[in-house]
Amino acid sequence: MSDRILGVLGGMGPLAGAQFMLRLTLLTPAERDADHIPAVLWSDPRVPDRTRGRGVPEADPLPWLLRGIAGLAAAGCGAIAVACNTAHEWYPEMQAAAPGPVLHIVDATMEAMVRAGIPPGPVGLMGTAATLRMRLYQDRLEPRGWDCLIPPPEEMDRLVTPAIARVKANRPDAAFPPLAEAARGLVRRGARAVVLGCTEIPLAMAAGPAAEIGVPLVDSIDALALAAIAWARG
Amino acid sequence: MSDRILGVLGGMGPLAGAQFMLRLTLLTPAERDADHIPAVLWSDPRVPDRTRGRGVPEADPLPWLLRGIAGLAAAGCGAIAVACNTAHEWYPEMQAAAPGPVLHIVDATMEAMVRAGIPPGPVGLMGTAATLRMRLYQDRLEPRGWDCLIPPPEEMDRLVTPAIARVKANRPDAAFPPLAEAARGLVRRGARAVVLGCTEIPLAMAAGPAAEIGVPLVDSIDALALAAIAWARG
Repeated sequence: MSDRILGVLGGMGPLAGAQFMLRLTLLTPAERDADHIPAVLWSDPRVPDRTRGRGVPEADPLPWLLRGIAGLAAAGCGAIAVACNTAHEWYPEMQAAAPGPVLHIVDATMEAMVRAGIPPGPVGLMGTAATLRMRLYQDRLEPRGWDCLIPPPEEMDRLVTPAIARVKANRPDAAFPPLAEAARGLVRRGARAVVLGCTEIPLAMAAGPAAEIGVPLVDSIDALALAAIAWARG
Repeated sequence: MSDRILGVLGGMGPLAGAQFMLRLTLLTPAERDADHIPAVLWSDPRVPDRTRGRGVPEADPLPWLLRGIAGLAAAGCGAIAVACNTAHEWYPEMQAAAPGPVLHIVDATMEAMVRAGIPPGPVGLMGTAATLRMRLYQDRLEPRGWDCLIPPPEEMDRLVTPAIARVKANRPDAAFPPLAEAARGLVRRGARAVVLGCTEIPLAMAAGPAAEIGVPLVDSIDALALAAIAWARG
């Protein structure tokens, strides 16, 4: 039985946070309730849009993120998992305010890539336009030899961005075809794997025949859940 | 945008609590993050086994339930949904300690039965042996004209109780065949619907061809989620 309580900052979007809790549970080796990890999910979908980035005073996500961190700290949580890639733009501020480690979703994803045996070379990367623009993944993956291919701007606007919005509107099935098209474009350009660097995207991929894309898809929700389980197990 | 924050007392088991959050999200009419309901899930799988009932001093669930209620109150939650049927044995104590209404899962399920047009007469009821023994459903459904048929003790021991344990051990697919067998037995005895009065059971039913059972299955997770949405929408 674990006495380490995991804090989960979710709600960004709420489906991704709920999916994180589901995957955290299913990926935990357990035979009974008490084998599972105590956790508190702070699901606040009122956090202003992270994709607008920094410097938007009337809609700054940071105070909302810190409010969630404080709530999770008050609940007795140790480590904190933030179930939103784009929110990691504010990682330093969140870590400074947290009661323990904030598990970085890109570190967790890189660990999953190593376990999956993804070789150095070109990998596809999908995420919000903000995540790609702030180079959240590229600056960490490229020094390790993974060269990041991202969808061209036209495909971001026509395929990826609308698909992420569809997941937030509870239509992950309608988000599969455009995301699969964008992923296949990355594979045609040489990607040997595709990193799903937005917590909405794995939900869409699970709603269609994702195996047909033909390369490993690296799920940042599962990667973060596995990092959380490793933390809880100590 | 809702300013009502829902508290969810989960972890009993953790998969059921996570599934509640997923269904809460998917059942909420929403076009964007901010249309969803702010919620905090307190997922504490260390709560002692509810099925042993009252009067087990060394393993009394009540202090753990009240600790969760207090945590959710401190987080600013208004109403509280308890994602475990058997825990409703302690409903009066939880309601007395709560910052607002505790949404009763049986009331929510009865509302779902009315919406589904389940006529008066025999209905099947599946749940933990403790939920059936404490007549959590029977004492509320029978005055409304729904006569509850429950699985015989041999089927509880051989089918229902082990199946619930399988969901807690992350094997909902392995829980479907025994629960389907128990449900078909209730239908043969005349049940016109089967109430899934344990939050583990809908997870198992979703893992198999439940429609083949041939009568409406009333899902207490979905019913509680819909009651919570109605509260949040206010």
